[in-house]
Amino acid sequence: MKKQASLEVLVEALRRLPGVGPKSAQRMAYHLLQHDRDGLAALGHACSNADAQIHHCELCNNFTESTVCETCVNSDRDGELLCIVETPADLLMIEQTMTFKGLYFVLMGRLSPLDGVGPQDIHLSKLVQRATNGVVREVILATNFTNEGEATAHYLGETLKAQGLAVTRLARGVPLGGELEYVDPGTIARAMLDRRST
Amino acid sequence: MKKQASLEVLVEALRRLPGVGPKSAQRMAYHLLQHDRDGLAALGHACSNADAQIHHCELCNNFTESTVCETCVNSDRDGELLCIVETPADLLMIEQTMTFKGLYFVLMGRLSPLDGVGPQDIHLSKLVQRATNGVVREVILATNFTNEGEATAHYLGETLKAQGLAVTRLARGVPLGGELEYVDPGTIARAMLDRRST
Repeated sequence: MKKQASLEVLVEALRRLPGVGPKSAQRMAYHLLQHDRDGLAALGHACSNADAQIHHCELCNNFTESTVCETCVNSDRDGELLCIVETPADLLMIEQTMTFKGLYFVLMGRLSPLDGVGPQDIHLSKLVQRATNGVVREVILATNFTNEGEATAHYLGETLKAQGLAVTRLARGVPLGGELEYVDPGTIARAMLDRRST
Repeated sequence: MKKQASLEVLVEALRRLPGVGPKSAQRMAYHLLQHDRDGLAALGHACSNADAQIHHCELCNNFTESTVCETCVNSDRDGELLCIVETPADLLMIEQTMTFKGLYFVLMGRLSPLDGVGPQDIHLSKLVQRATNGVVREVILATNFTNEGEATAHYLGETLKAQGLAVTRLARGVPLGGELEYVDPGTIARAMLDRRST
C-alpha cells in the first residue's frame, strides 16, 4: 500500500475533524473520491483559503477576514453594551434573537483549570482592553450556564467590576414551553429566587 | 456577514461530507480554525493532492496513484483468481483475512435500478475485459449479501458464465460465534441447505 500515500494522507486529515473516527474518515474519503470529486476539490480550496484568510477581529476576537469584523465596524450598533460569549456559535445564536444591538467579545473558550485553560487562553487582557475603552458602560456575561461557563462568568465579572464597569448576567429561569414537572429542581429553585412581579 | 465568505465556504464544503449536517459542519470549521490550524492546512493539502493524484487502476478499478495499482503489479499474486467486490473497503477487509492471494476487481458500487445505477455504472465492460484476459480461470463474487449485492452477483455471474468462466460466490451460513437462537431464520435455512459433511 506504499503508493496509496495520497489516500492515506486524506484519511488521516479527515480523522482530525471532531467526531470523525477511522471508519468514518475512510468512508468520507471514498465518498469524495468516487462520488463527489467537485466536493473534494472544493474542500481543498476552502480549507487552504480559510487557513490563509481567516483570523481574529482586533476588537471582538471573533473570526473575520478583515482587521476589524463587520459587526464591530457597524455604526448602528450600541458601543455602550458589550456582550461576552464563549464561541462564535453563541454569538450567532444571540444575533438570531434580534434582541441585542450592542457589540460582542468572543472568548473562544471558557476557563477550565483541569484542562489547563487559564485566563490568558480566553484572551483576558484583550477583553479588559476592549471593555475599558471609555465607551463601554455595561458588560453582559453570556457564557454558558454550565459549571465552567458559570466559573468563567464569575471570574470575568469580578475582574471587570474592579474596572468600574456595570456587569450583568443573562437571566436564569424556566425555559419557554417548560413544564414544571419536567424542569430540573435547580432551575425551579433559581426561578423562585429570581421571581418577578407581573 | 458578507466578509465571512471564507468561513461560509468552508462550512459548505464540510457539509458535503457524508453524515455531516449544518451544525456539525459549523462545529468542525470552528474547531479547525480555533484549535487545529495545522489540521486545517493539512486537510486542504490532502484534498487538493488526492484530487490531483488519485484515479482508478486500469486493471482492477481500485483507487491508485499509478497507472496500475500495487496489488495488480504484484507478481506473487495468483492471476487465475479474480475476486469481485463492491468497494475498496470490502477489498481491504478481504485482504485482512489473509486467505486470498488472487487479484481483485472493484465495482465501485452495486446494481440498483431504483437509484438509476445500471451495468455501465459498475464498470461492466471493464470487468468483462479484465476477466476475459485469458489468464483468469475463476471469478469469485464477493458483493454484499444484501438484496442489491445479491442481484449484482446474480447479474455478473450470468454475464461471466456466458464467457466460459468458472463463477463462485462466498459461502453463506451462520457467522463465527453465532448463536442459533439469535441468528435470523433465513440464514439458518441457508446454512441447512448448504450443510457440509464434516
